[in-house]
Amino acid sequence: MKIAVLGTGMVGRTLAGAFTALGHDAAIGTRDPGATSARTGPDMMGAPAFSEWHAANRHIPLMTFAEAAEAAELVVNATNGAGALDALGSAGAARLAGKVLMDVSNPLDFSQGMPPVLNPVNTDSLAERIQRAFPGARVVKTLNTMNAGLMVDPRRLADGDHSVFLSGDDPDAKAVVKGLLEELGHRDVIDLGDITTARGAEMLLPLWLRLYAALGTPNFNIKVVRAVE
Amino acid sequence: MKIAVLGTGMVGRTLAGAFTALGHDAAIGTRDPGATSARTGPDMMGAPAFSEWHAANRHIPLMTFAEAAEAAELVVNATNGAGALDALGSAGAARLAGKVLMDVSNPLDFSQGMPPVLNPVNTDSLAERIQRAFPGARVVKTLNTMNAGLMVDPRRLADGDHSVFLSGDDPDAKAVVKGLLEELGHRDVIDLGDITTARGAEMLLPLWLRLYAALGTPNFNIKVVRAVE
Repeated sequence: MKIAVLGTGMVGRTLAGAFTALGHDAAIGTRDPGATSARTGPDMMGAPAFSEWHAANRHIPLMTFAEAAEAAELVVNATNGAGALDALGSAGAARLAGKVLMDVSNPLDFSQGMPPVLNPVNTDSLAERIQRAFPGARVVKTLNTMNAGLMVDPRRLADGDHSVFLSGDDPDAKAVVKGLLEELGHRDVIDLGDITTARGAEMLLPLWLRLYAALGTPNFNIKVVRAVE
Repeated sequence: MKIAVLGTGMVGRTLAGAFTALGHDAAIGTRDPGATSARTGPDMMGAPAFSEWHAANRHIPLMTFAEAAEAAELVVNATNGAGALDALGSAGAARLAGKVLMDVSNPLDFSQGMPPVLNPVNTDSLAERIQRAFPGARVVKTLNTMNAGLMVDPRRLADGDHSVFLSGDDPDAKAVVKGLLEELGHRDVIDLGDITTARGAEMLLPLWLRLYAALGTPNFNIKVVRAVE
């Protein structure tokens, strides 16, 4: 499948690398490829400069948001939550129309210090904002509840015995995303329901951040334990 | 241990019954025992009238909030979140001072319809509000992330292979609560940190409510899967 991963941070790089390793035709999208490639030093999340990663991953092309989306059958929003609507606007509504738009980002607001706050909450979510802004896209929220390493290699932890969530209004789009998750090794994909259920998945982040601090590692995930049928 | 469980809903009844069964000296507190006993028909959450439950549990005394708190070494806030500060005010700051105050409630606001919204979020929590309002109490947030049946009998699901959280500023109070949780059968008690970490535990509720709808049962819980040390 031709996949555009929008976002050059750790999550975007990790997903693009994993999709490529699975045999998909993945590209990475950014606002300004020249500027992204010219950046030096760690990014705001502490990841090494993109150019360092790209030197070892030359087979994955870096394009503008629009070029990447244009060519893709499936688009992944792996930008940081605060910039997601803007980045998707650069990709262009027409290039997203009809496509599965896998949203893995979290609407974390770092402007008020640490820990970040989540915005929106309760009666809206970033996934819904994206769906409203791009009504032709088939938005599926997923993977936002775990570390990038576990997103693409869930079996590295407890042989994959933990859960991942899906939220979206389009059943076919959710089936496509579920298939991709299973290719990555996810064993327990829970369909929460329509796109409004992304509120719950996004609101897990504050607990995730506290667990990260308490456990001292991001190598953990949530398993929804339920009675065997 | 002498335990006052404030709140006569399903959670309060279930906890008081379980603590009694473990050999603790538990009482239930309510605003007006006469009015609570006189109520007929299901409560706002669909639980049978208190009097029906109490007819089968006469050995657990029903008292005012103040009477129950006065006699107790440990006080449990099992009122509904919206009424918690008011109920604890009725119990009285002097009667809570120095005591462990186990807060199991969630600040759900049903006034805007279903699903309820959570208030406060992000930069505050109900647990912190309680701690600020009653600085002499030693507040520990716990158990708010699961159904009442699992609170008191975690081994009914996957032999207890799932997690429960603690948040609080007083290490000794957390140790007391941890001991009580272990008596109930909890095997994985995760100390998230200080009282501000209750924000994360409370913000799990929207996901919990969506999982309840998606799974069709409240008989599930979250397990934090992490690498074996």
